[in-house]
Amino acid sequence: MSSEFGNILRVSVFGQSHGKAIGVNIDGLPAGEPIDLEELNAFLDRRKPGKSPLSTARKESDTPVFLSGLENGVTCGFPLCAVIENSDQHSSDYSELADKPRPSHADYTARVKWGGHADMRGGGHFSGRLTAPLCIAGGIAKQILARRGIFVGAHLAAVGTENDAPFPLHPTAELFDAIAAKPFPVVDDGAGDRMQALILEARQDLDSVGGIIECAAIGLPAGLGDPMFGGVENRLAAALFGIPAVKGVEFGLGFGSARLHGSENNDPFTMENGTVVTASNRAGGILGGITTGMPVTLRTAIKPTPSISRPQQTVSLSAMENAELVIRGRHDPCIAHRAVPVVEAVTATVLLDLLLEGNHGTF
Amino acid sequence: MSSEFGNILRVSVFGQSHGKAIGVNIDGLPAGEPIDLEELNAFLDRRKPGKSPLSTARKESDTPVFLSGLENGVTCGFPLCAVIENSDQHSSDYSELADKPRPSHADYTARVKWGGHADMRGGGHFSGRLTAPLCIAGGIAKQILARRGIFVGAHLAAVGTENDAPFPLHPTAELFDAIAAKPFPVVDDGAGDRMQALILEARQDLDSVGGIIECAAIGLPAGLGDPMFGGVENRLAAALFGIPAVKGVEFGLGFGSARLHGSENNDPFTMENGTVVTASNRAGGILGGITTGMPVTLRTAIKPTPSISRPQQTVSLSAMENAELVIRGRHDPCIAHRAVPVVEAVTATVLLDLLLEGNHGTF
Amino acid sequence: MSSEFGNILRVSVFGQSHGKAIGVNIDGLPAGEPIDLEELNAFLDRRKPGKSPLSTARKESDTPVFLSGLENGVTCGFPLCAVIENSDQHSSDYSELADKPRPSHADYTARVKWGGHADMRGGGHFSGRLTAPLCIAGGIAKQILARRGIFVGAHLAAVGTENDAPFPLHPTAELFDAIAAKPFPVVDDGAGDRMQALILEARQDLDSVGGIIECAAIGLPAGLGDPMFGGVENRLAAALFGIPAVKGVEFGLGFGSARLHGSENNDPFTMENGTVVTASNRAGGILGGITTGMPVTLRTAIKPTPSISRPQQTVSLSAMENAELVIRGRHDPCIAHRAVPVVEAVTATVLLDLLLEGNHGTF
Amino acid sequence: MSSEFGNILRVSVFGQSHGKAIGVNIDGLPAGEPIDLEELNAFLDRRKPGKSPLSTARKESDTPVFLSGLENGVTCGFPLCAVIENSDQHSSDYSELADKPRPSHADYTARVKWGGHADMRGGGHFSGRLTAPLCIAGGIAKQILARRGIFVGAHLAAVGTENDAPFPLHPTAELFDAIAAKPFPVVDDGAGDRMQALILEARQDLDSVGGIIECAAIGLPAGLGDPMFGGVENRLAAALFGIPAVKGVEFGLGFGSARLHGSENNDPFTMENGTVVTASNRAGGILGGITTGMPVTLRTAIKPTPSISRPQQTVSLSAMENAELVIRGRHDPCIAHRAVPVVEAVTATVLLDLLLEGNHGTF
Repeated sequence: MSSEFGNILRVSVFGQSHGKAIGVNIDGLPAGEPIDLEELNAFLDRRKPGKSPLSTARKESDTPVFLSGLENGVTCGFPLCAVIENSDQHSSDYSELADKPRPSHADYTARVKWGGHADMRGGGHFSGRLTAPLCIAGGIAKQILARRGIFVGAHLAAVGTENDAPFPLHPTAELFDAIAAKPFPVVDDGAGDRMQALILEARQDLDSVGGIIECAAIGLPAGLGDPMFGGVENRLAAALFGIPAVKGVEFGLGFGSARLHGSENNDPFTMENGTVVTASNRAGGILGGITTGMPVTLRTAIKPTPSISRPQQTVSLSAMENAELVIRGRHDPCIAHRAVPVVEAVTATVLLDLLLEGNHGTF
Repeated sequence: MSSEFGNILRVSVFGQSHGKAIGVNIDGLPAGEPIDLEELNAFLDRRKPGKSPLSTARKESDTPVFLSGLENGVTCGFPLCAVIENSDQHSSDYSELADKPRPSHADYTARVKWGGHADMRGGGHFSGRLTAPLCIAGGIAKQILARRGIFVGAHLAAVGTENDAPFPLHPTAELFDAIAAKPFPVVDDGAGDRMQALILEARQDLDSVGGIIECAAIGLPAGLGDPMFGGVENRLAAALFGIPAVKGVEFGLGFGSARLHGSENNDPFTMENGTVVTASNRAGGILGGITTGMPVTLRTAIKPTPSISRPQQTVSLSAMENAELVIRGRHDPCIAHRAVPVVEAVTATVLLDLLLEGNHGTF
Repeated sequence: MSSEFGNILRVSVFGQSHGKAIGVNIDGLPAGEPIDLEELNAFLDRRKPGKSPLSTARKESDTPVFLSGLENGVTCGFPLCAVIENSDQHSSDYSELADKPRPSHADYTARVKWGGHADMRGGGHFSGRLTAPLCIAGGIAKQILARRGIFVGAHLAAVGTENDAPFPLHPTAELFDAIAAKPFPVVDDGAGDRMQALILEARQDLDSVGGIIECAAIGLPAGLGDPMFGGVENRLAAALFGIPAVKGVEFGLGFGSARLHGSENNDPFTMENGTVVTASNRAGGILGGITTGMPVTLRTAIKPTPSISRPQQTVSLSAMENAELVIRGRHDPCIAHRAVPVVEAVTATVLLDLLLEGNHGTF
Repeated sequence: MSSEFGNILRVSVFGQSHGKAIGVNIDGLPAGEPIDLEELNAFLDRRKPGKSPLSTARKESDTPVFLSGLENGVTCGFPLCAVIENSDQHSSDYSELADKPRPSHADYTARVKWGGHADMRGGGHFSGRLTAPLCIAGGIAKQILARRGIFVGAHLAAVGTENDAPFPLHPTAELFDAIAAKPFPVVDDGAGDRMQALILEARQDLDSVGGIIECAAIGLPAGLGDPMFGGVENRLAAALFGIPAVKGVEFGLGFGSARLHGSENNDPFTMENGTVVTASNRAGGILGGITTGMPVTLRTAIKPTPSISRPQQTVSLSAMENAELVIRGRHDPCIAHRAVPVVEAVTATVLLDLLLEGNHGTF
């Protein structure tokens, strides 16, 4: 089982970057949920490349075609399969890479695993393009969740050494919408300008740069999730590491907590309008794997795009000797900003799965 | 499904801190594997409390009894169930907490999920004590892996603001053994002294402190793991977040990668003794979810123990009003050092599962 | 994954017939469910051997000890582990079988799979004794279901060529109780007498005989289950074939339907007290994998005990030549009557899992 | 999880009978496997309707389009998604059924589960048409298995009261091919003629008739499968009940075993060319859930098509009162003969999954 996740809601992603089509099959969606296709397409647009010098010039139409599961714009209870045809491919750009694996890309491990059989044109099934189907699933999940008062939003928390302002203790749906509407998804536009300058500089240097995405979900009930391996953190992490380039996942303060004392890290419980809340949220809304009712917050580390235009050292697999590689083709100098909606998408999908599964604490 | 993980090798953990017994059932172990019980008990000893002022004074005998699956010290192919009886419990210490949930502990979420029914004495099923069964599973996995030249080791990379030296590019089994033999599991003993001082200071301040654990696995073949959601990172993270207090997981440089340029983060491929290796290992031995053959390296963030002796603000669930809480009983001022073998255990168990599952790239 | 089943409710069975103990771990039970241990033990008694010449003389105390998950007789939300210690074992009876596999028993396949490592004394993990832990899980599930008006009952529908009367269209909880209270679990005691005579005759002939068990569940809501592979039939069959000696499973008329015309097999819908019901129930309460609200009915085929005392032809695995085998030890001339509560147990457990999972049709 | 099955090889089926397309996504196929599309299409042709008065006149082109996973006719290691566009639909035929559920069809249970939202035109996702994607998966699996000397074949063992001759003890690939090449898939053509007469008679009587399919797999190694719930029987049954209209599954003699004595049912082991075999195969090649190396044999009961043209009693869901229904449209008087390749397909897919998973007995 590789390109699937979920318990009640099973999401299966298929396709190669330069194959006939990419797509997603979603098994377990509830019936009777209207899906606003305009809103969905607007969500998909957020991860699209080709919009600015900050990303690859590759154009993608990315308009999904629904083969099943959606009738007259409403989910019908059966598996929903959506596909996006591939086009605007420059497969010739990739011929050299079959022999000379790109450093820090899956070229080499794919070769070891599948021999020469893996279709790695354009990165194959490892391509960032495969995040488009994930966004179809996540865009649908976000609409279903929003109808229940649950909202998922994200922003680019860092690019290289430049940091955005963090989310406030209680981010709102309005804040999520405002960030989503920006051409560059940050809380603080000044920080955003500095981040963009860093990306453009990296591009000019034939280099790339990494980033961090902060994501939050509000409106979740307390009591979701299970102890130990069925926890909300486990399930989110298991899915989030499926986004290409994610190398770290943390909840609440995460690695920051490791540097603190208990007296600094503990979130005091307090009453607010007759409800138990915490005065701070360093736990990221999760204690013992189970939601507290506070916002669920997480951060993912996105490594810098491995495909850079500088000459790099690699090996020739045919000659089994060291070789130099100059990667051609169009590549993103940074993918972290484009990955913001993808992190939202995966988070929303996992949370919908948890909600559909229900809280089995009592019966 | 909550207290279980694994695909081919299924590990189920059961028990409450103050119940009759805790234990683990392991389904899918190969037959014919001799288990050295002395070695296993030595491994279990590494996580035991009561050995120094750095941890709780609670004594645990923690000697596992094997109910099934192990005959004459050799695995017999059937599910292996091992139990540890509970003793030395001070349940009265916990009576107040049913009403006043400890900040940043699972008391509150357990109450929301299971009403008053959850047996939360001593932390119930959320207790760090439940990591003992995990270590039984992991200690067995480590022996089976070692026989195939695969070794898993860990050290305490940080306590609060104090850092240990990192693992070298190629950690060795000897290094793992040397660290495991130390009373305080660090690479650099000077750093270890500073960390211990920090822990003792926290204890004196009626406080606690967090830490970071670095873990590495050497000897793994290239080609293990699957793309997207079946990746080595996904599967390790899904299990590692099941260790109590883990709030972040990263592979290779992890969040550090997000701060770098591609030219700084990429690992050049190079030939070494006729084999393809990478000159650096910022990827943590995993590209596209699949092992490269380099050491798999990961770090987990351990939050500071939430049970501190200082007065803390919480709520009374019976009165539904704010309240003050003073936690009594014996608690660890830091659990990160005791969690080192637990991280090894979970890592080893997931890797054995991956190895048993095999590499399905070609048939 | 081998000795486990279930989605939300995960049941893991462990132990060997002549090992230290057998048991079951149940992950996912709801909290707050009182378990009547007297009622549970009465249920376990129904499958116990040693009560009459109809079964083996082996005595089993079979009193479960609860290691976790049950506090003061009430489920506490955490995994429930229950064990039964083994005793009254005659392991020496089995020494010859390691070399000469019993025809139609798992001796040979165990040898192929695990080499000589499998602990096959007394049948090892394949022993009918492992159905005792299944009955612990099922007995608990039956109590939880009964509290919601859902009842599961079974009877011995056939022994060899002798048939019991079938369940009526609407079996009642009273009928289930009445059958459970009988020393021989049939609807028609006259038929039961003929069946028992057949079993005793088989015993006298140093032979054994097979049988069929009919099971029904009443009180289930309509709408449970999913299309295709998530259907109620799929999930029940997947678990029922885990009972040793089951070689066939059918729902409603099952193989009988294959012999009929549509006009004879279709169940007409009709209104009854304002509810849609079917006038007959040849479908066994399941259409398209989903419950109709009518009783779920199924039948399982139990093969004759392979361990018979007559001389049989087999092979010597050490000599790799044909050999004669005379099985010694105590064996049941028929296990079908003892398997009646086991089929109830597995059915009840799967149905509770389905109920806990909920009906995800709409949200 | 509903329309999926498999462990290592995950098969997800999607689509509705009158939606845009139907299809299958197969995750986990090994790379480097050439797929002969002509052979695959010939296999798909075996289940197609419209070829004779024995089945519905609906024409289906059923030519699969491969969106991913297959490049230049060779599997590339990534998920393989194949779709078949729908055409020749008469959706108006089904308008009445939304209110008046057809007896013994999923119309009613779908209505209960998904309210009015399920797209049940043409039977929706429950339609026999959804077996075409299953045959794509199975046709691919059959080619991969055949390359390893493993062959799966089936025949129509019964239509109503008419029986075909059973498979011999050792069916051959040649026999499978010969049956597959026949217009009516039986061993004994005389029996086939009688079966066909029965089907035509049923059609003339505005009725339908059920049947039984026997399937066998040869060339499997001994030692595949796991005890209890991971057995070959469990896994095959769990998938086979996903074929619409299957109401029973049995292995070897199945329900026939229940009527026998042990001395009649046991399969004596014997040496043959230095190998351990059984002289008979009443166990269907499976003991303790694990393959013996003998042919795996199974039978599935197919109920008569519920859609018959005679007036039938049902209810009006809008009026909540009894009503008469006359089903219009084109329906098969028997689907058992068309289901023969479907049973082969599902069996082959499950067996390939088991083979890919490997035998974890020893390591």
